[in-house]
Amino acid sequence: MDLLVDLSGSGDRTARIYQHLLDGIASGRLPPGERLPATRSMAQELGVARGTVTAAYNRLLAEGYLESRVGAGTFVSREVGTARPASAPVGEVRPLEVWDRLPAAVPDAPSLDYDLSVAGPDTRLFPFAVWRRLVSATLRPALQDQPVYDGSGHPQLQAEIARHLRLSRSVMTDGPDVLLTGGAQQALDLIGRVLLAPGDTVAVEDPGYTAVLRLYASQGADVRGVPVDDEGLVVDALPDRARLVYVTPSHQFPTGAVMSLRRRTALLDWAESHRALIVEDDYDSEFRYGSRALAPLQSLDRCGRVAYVGSFSKVLMPMLRVGYVVAPRSLQPALRTAKSLSDWQGDTVTQGAMARFLAEGLLAAHVRRATRVYAGRRSVLLRELSELDDVLTPYPSTAGLHVCTRFRDQRRSDRKVAAALEAEGVGVEPLSPRFIDQPPVHGLALGLRHIDEPRVPEAVRRIGAVLRR
Amino acid sequence: MDLLVDLSGSGDRTARIYQHLLDGIASGRLPPGERLPATRSMAQELGVARGTVTAAYNRLLAEGYLESRVGAGTFVSREVGTARPASAPVGEVRPLEVWDRLPAAVPDAPSLDYDLSVAGPDTRLFPFAVWRRLVSATLRPALQDQPVYDGSGHPQLQAEIARHLRLSRSVMTDGPDVLLTGGAQQALDLIGRVLLAPGDTVAVEDPGYTAVLRLYASQGADVRGVPVDDEGLVVDALPDRARLVYVTPSHQFPTGAVMSLRRRTALLDWAESHRALIVEDDYDSEFRYGSRALAPLQSLDRCGRVAYVGSFSKVLMPMLRVGYVVAPRSLQPALRTAKSLSDWQGDTVTQGAMARFLAEGLLAAHVRRATRVYAGRRSVLLRELSELDDVLTPYPSTAGLHVCTRFRDQRRSDRKVAAALEAEGVGVEPLSPRFIDQPPVHGLALGLRHIDEPRVPEAVRRIGAVLRR
Repeated sequence: MDLLVDLSGSGDRTARIYQHLLDGIASGRLPPGERLPATRSMAQELGVARGTVTAAYNRLLAEGYLESRVGAGTFVSREVGTARPASAPVGEVRPLEVWDRLPAAVPDAPSLDYDLSVAGPDTRLFPFAVWRRLVSATLRPALQDQPVYDGSGHPQLQAEIARHLRLSRSVMTDGPDVLLTGGAQQALDLIGRVLLAPGDTVAVEDPGYTAVLRLYASQGADVRGVPVDDEGLVVDALPDRARLVYVTPSHQFPTGAVMSLRRRTALLDWAESHRALIVEDDYDSEFRYGSRALAPLQSLDRCGRVAYVGSFSKVLMPMLRVGYVVAPRSLQPALRTAKSLSDWQGDTVTQGAMARFLAEGLLAAHVRRATRVYAGRRSVLLRELSELDDVLTPYPSTAGLHVCTRFRDQRRSDRKVAAALEAEGVGVEPLSPRFIDQPPVHGLALGLRHIDEPRVPEAVRRIGAVLRR
Repeated sequence: MDLLVDLSGSGDRTARIYQHLLDGIASGRLPPGERLPATRSMAQELGVARGTVTAAYNRLLAEGYLESRVGAGTFVSREVGTARPASAPVGEVRPLEVWDRLPAAVPDAPSLDYDLSVAGPDTRLFPFAVWRRLVSATLRPALQDQPVYDGSGHPQLQAEIARHLRLSRSVMTDGPDVLLTGGAQQALDLIGRVLLAPGDTVAVEDPGYTAVLRLYASQGADVRGVPVDDEGLVVDALPDRARLVYVTPSHQFPTGAVMSLRRRTALLDWAESHRALIVEDDYDSEFRYGSRALAPLQSLDRCGRVAYVGSFSKVLMPMLRVGYVVAPRSLQPALRTAKSLSDWQGDTVTQGAMARFLAEGLLAAHVRRATRVYAGRRSVLLRELSELDDVLTPYPSTAGLHVCTRFRDQRRSDRKVAAALEAEGVGVEPLSPRFIDQPPVHGLALGLRHIDEPRVPEAVRRIGAVLRR
């Protein structure tokens, strides 16, 4: 640590250290309550005797600028004024105009008594003890043998993901096809960077995952919403010029619709005849209730038109960023370069732990355990919702961590209903903001991630009470 | 895990599982040597009795498609053919043309007997045991209280970095100013995304850090090299239209020059009069030998023209991605949104461990310890290089993890010299590829990160022998 004290030349070093600290305190650079370095380490850093630093500290202590707390260290006194620490200047450098039009990301809502918000898994189910063991096993000098700087990341994790996807999802891939990313979001980002020129058309599901809309808009694309029905994306409604089509076929977000096999084939044909890339986000496909999944688009693709994107962040914990993309080989070198320019190889510690998690069969075990929990919450939720049949209709779905519903009375504003429910301690997500170009449907998405099963009935009762008002 | 076996309707389930696996083996989707799931977990997954799966496995074992290894599990037989696993189709979707012109990232060179390559720290100095403790302390349910999805990351780490930068580098910042990133590379990426329109001019040091050139070129910018002398970037040579100027003032990469105070002031004035942003990469400023650092540009900036970028990946280990940017407030909201669209809040586990590392004063201790090691290697290197005075001249420098040199005879090709040295077990980096628009200087950059002190003399002797040939 360097305190930037100029100690060149001769003269009283204690006085200079004293003056430097005093200037820092007076200017607010060292704010009240700030902890100073220990005298020993500051002396080492400045190359002076410890006593020289101690003398400066003692003078400032005596004058009340510093205060000492036994066992905790030396701090700038809380008495010396209330100036906040110097912060970065405001400046007038403006971002590109597109960034003014993009709404800021919204942090997770504060947890409510009855939290039916949507996004991510129940992190309370995360196997903390197991993960600590796996990270500790990864954090060994052997970690240095992993490649850095070329974008590939951890080869064992690539191989484990390839094996997992071949067996569990029939995805055509081997290890080197698997580009490791910081979650699905980074995979989607990299695809846009290598494929989209400003003004290119991107088609997304409508209603859909608005983070994708915002992402590709930030990259200068013209993003169009394409309607969705109970067979998934309406392929006939795709804009002819679309260069990239983003879909969630195994569990459409937010409606939950499963794309039919007929539509899957039609979409692949459309992409081939329009020379477009399909981005298949196999979102929430792990958590299924009752029915088997259809084969992903990627496994049906004979022409190299599908980039298959997945993530473990949504399965395990959003604080861990591990995702991947299996792209056609024609795009793989550019994607790898784009990854390396984004953050090199990513965090190989987390990647190494994830490789062990897969190799030990722990992912399958975790998904089974978590699915049981969500299935319990979900069946209570659906049972209770059937009592609200006069005001609310669930969309059919067989997978995922939320249930989507629509109001019978479409004159009701779902935002107002959500606000009224929040005032009653119930967190829900309004459906209409997920619509892009299509006329919005009002309803509620009800998440399973943060509510315990016994609390579901009361939450639904309150929803019913608000809707019947 | 889902094997996609269609078990709907009635009929012989064992036969269907058998046929599904056989198809997988025949198609190469289940390649020779592939491990199959345990019968117990596959049965659970498919919702059938374990015996149903065991019967299918046994039939394939009997027919030689599978083989069983005691204690290891059941595998696809290595005898069934040598088809490699199905891999992603080639396809014809092409990336944007700019990606064809960008060279792929180069992985770390294999370690040589005398490894003087440049890039990153000596990862053997990384405090693995300490880091394991800090990660374990972070991997607790309290981790869920960290904000997700809005781009901010771990607030304690923001606060610790702000404190560290105020004290050690006089940077004007408080916690919320600090945007956490996946290393300096992601910080540079985010700045370009929010600031640069296609065709905008970016000025970089020449010679310089070519990853920055490649990054901004990939974003569509017109990247220009600006000459560097022994006072750092030649401000008078900046192109008038530059919207972003990337500099490494505390230790110019690769020459090691420290930007003089006069130039710092001139650059700040230039940026203000040309309405440009300065990106200050405080690269390698931690490792200093003898002299004190000058105050960063950011601490001298009164107009909000500097984005200050730093990283712990270079100090600790490139496998850990932790960096930050302190930008003018006018850019902070867009940068936070761009971060959230890239990979949400990043990996908060690593961030939490880093916060503890700083709070416990372990960074300062690590830097002191590592600097001692590098200083020893460096002084031996400089002493030995003085024997090569007839062929090689070091650039003056007082910081960083490498020493840059130039050939006395500029007709010698540094690439050829580097190749000849590699054949003799000595890894060095040629200087000329670091030049962009300026006429290249031939020389060698000699890194301290991967060679132990006693091996330095022999490495230098071999360099001398090749150069005197």
